[in-house]
Amino acid sequence: MAYPEMANGNGSWSLKPSKTKGKSITCKAAVAYGPGKPFVVEEIIVHPPQKMEVRIKILYTSICHTDLSAWRGENEAQRAYPRILGHEASGIVESVGEGVSELKEGDVVVPIFNGECGECCYCTCEKSNMCERFGVNPMKKVMEGDGTTRFSTLNDKPIFHFLNTSTFSEYTVLDSACVVKLPHSDHNLSLKNLTLLSCGVSTGVGAAWNTANVHSGSSVAVFGLGAVGLAVAEGARARGASKIVGVDINPDKFIKAQAMGVTDFINPKDKEKPRIREMTDGGVHYSFECTGNSDVLRDSFLSAHEGWGLTVVLGIHSSPKLLPIHPMELFDGRQIVGSVFGGFKGKSQLPHFATQCGHGVVKLDNFITHELPFEEINQAFDLLIAGKSLRCLLHF
Amino acid sequence: MAYPEMANGNGSWSLKPSKTKGKSITCKAAVAYGPGKPFVVEEIIVHPPQKMEVRIKILYTSICHTDLSAWRGENEAQRAYPRILGHEASGIVESVGEGVSELKEGDVVVPIFNGECGECCYCTCEKSNMCERFGVNPMKKVMEGDGTTRFSTLNDKPIFHFLNTSTFSEYTVLDSACVVKLPHSDHNLSLKNLTLLSCGVSTGVGAAWNTANVHSGSSVAVFGLGAVGLAVAEGARARGASKIVGVDINPDKFIKAQAMGVTDFINPKDKEKPRIREMTDGGVHYSFECTGNSDVLRDSFLSAHEGWGLTVVLGIHSSPKLLPIHPMELFDGRQIVGSVFGGFKGKSQLPHFATQCGHGVVKLDNFITHELPFEEINQAFDLLIAGKSLRCLLHF
Repeated sequence: MAYPEMANGNGSWSLKPSKTKGKSITCKAAVAYGPGKPFVVEEIIVHPPQKMEVRIKILYTSICHTDLSAWRGENEAQRAYPRILGHEASGIVESVGEGVSELKEGDVVVPIFNGECGECCYCTCEKSNMCERFGVNPMKKVMEGDGTTRFSTLNDKPIFHFLNTSTFSEYTVLDSACVVKLPHSDHNLSLKNLTLLSCGVSTGVGAAWNTANVHSGSSVAVFGLGAVGLAVAEGARARGASKIVGVDINPDKFIKAQAMGVTDFINPKDKEKPRIREMTDGGVHYSFECTGNSDVLRDSFLSAHEGWGLTVVLGIHSSPKLLPIHPMELFDGRQIVGSVFGGFKGKSQLPHFATQCGHGVVKLDNFITHELPFEEINQAFDLLIAGKSLRCLLHF
Repeated sequence: MAYPEMANGNGSWSLKPSKTKGKSITCKAAVAYGPGKPFVVEEIIVHPPQKMEVRIKILYTSICHTDLSAWRGENEAQRAYPRILGHEASGIVESVGEGVSELKEGDVVVPIFNGECGECCYCTCEKSNMCERFGVNPMKKVMEGDGTTRFSTLNDKPIFHFLNTSTFSEYTVLDSACVVKLPHSDHNLSLKNLTLLSCGVSTGVGAAWNTANVHSGSSVAVFGLGAVGLAVAEGARARGASKIVGVDINPDKFIKAQAMGVTDFINPKDKEKPRIREMTDGGVHYSFECTGNSDVLRDSFLSAHEGWGLTVVLGIHSSPKLLPIHPMELFDGRQIVGSVFGGFKGKSQLPHFATQCGHGVVKLDNFITHELPFEEINQAFDLLIAGKSLRCLLHF
């Protein structure tokens, strides 16, 4: 059976679309009303999908640091309330809008915050996974098609969207460019684990595979051992890296990291620990910055070997600081690049990645550390803030 | 005849090495005595080459902006006096020290400031043209072998070396790792033009070929149309770039630039000029920063297309400013890298490049704009400072 949780085993979920198609759905959602204010889990209205849009029933959603930053309102220009956050999830297509042909009711899907229209100069170029219309855009709060929202309160006040996805809701509406249908093949990938492909694991593994192209026998340093950092380590392990140095100030992360392929640990607070360049004959081939901290970014850059070392930036740096690198330091031959969604073109490439995950190329089992009912979303945020969870899966 | 200027036509110069080999030579040199002080052209003593060193007779030398910065003493930590500057030259081997087997008296050579020992981790790796022992190092002022100088004043005071080369002297001593023997083949590459391969043209063309790997039909922007910037344009032209935008605040540069393949000109002081991103459908494939100015670096970075644009930094940024780029801007998919000596491994790759130049793949004829006797070196500096010369060749 493709997805063990699925009722009928033939790859479609037993929804009853005829009852809801074309109609507004009243369902529960976690609504953010202001920066840092606890989510209110309440009933909202989810309107039908419009042209080239898809309405999906979310089965599982989890929480990523980007949700945390948005919830805190760290970037004032990106604030918009009331809003439904959330972007890492898995679900089932409930209904599709006009013109959508590649998705149908009952399809198993994951939402992607970095969409793929398939037609713009980026989508038609193999060098980039950006998308002119549906690329990641934290300022966007309405649907692309008509500039309005598909969510409203029970008294008809609009509720804003987030990152093309808004998964903290039992039902959500997305542009079809932001919905990936996943394959039903001969593996046992659980729908719970599929959720991880929606953001964190794809971002980390993809950074190692697509952006850095980590090679067998190479050395790697990962700064920040949250879910994304550990996914980088797992991706590097899958590629055959021979040394994977994990760096984190939370020593609790180290046990889990070992299972993901991390071979050496450094806690920067522990002054007795060896330095990365000493441990790796002059520096690593690839370093990954997964913290969003400017000092860590510099450490990460300098941990790479002169001449060929590559630093991949994944962390969100919201402070107005410039890159902590002097132009002349580029002459030492180190390179630095950014990576968004692991360089994956979501609609084209995630299905194959899901198949690889299903075959055990990448191990997903260790990422979900907690599970809670959706109503306990505020507690799930507390777990992430406390550094206790990698991913806390919320069940609808 | 391989080198038209050569007396005997068989690839060796008619020196009389037996008279000078193993002895100190008294000859003229331009000695720098302090930051910004006019050079003193005077007699100095050039001691014999030691183990793995080579003494060469300089025939032609020219002046690059790096000499200008060093002469001005812009970086205080790099100051050392008295010193013999100069690093772009061509010459003839006068004698070799113990252990040197691949060079012999009479060989036509160019000095390289970025040497190639052939044995270190960089020299044995195809990804880098750095060298652990003989890489470019503006702090170095003595010979690698014994930490002393091969130059002294007539009253035996040491005179410091510069950039592994010190070509503002009739004779100079270099490590053999910093001397490239050039081929005698069926072309008419003049010894005058060979000088250009020692730094400026190799740096610019190599940045286009090796660092950026400019492709046919691509768009390119070059910021700063000095000799290095024009060499970038010439390299891009040779690769078949279809649009090459030259940017300079000195409109006199534009006529010459046209001969080097520049198709469009922008003078940033002229507000009517179109912007590069508008001219190139969203930005160029490759931009090159050849000014050392931080604001220009940012303009250069932003002139590249999101998703795949690559900025190559060639300018020397001596001010303590950080890269004028925010970490989050890396997520737009633009990349930035540095390029030293155009990514050429000097000893391994310059001979082939010289052959290509001899065959007209790259045109060298427009770079030497002035020629003067060596004694008029101060006047040659004035020409460079005034932006009148690209390369002023000094004759011994």
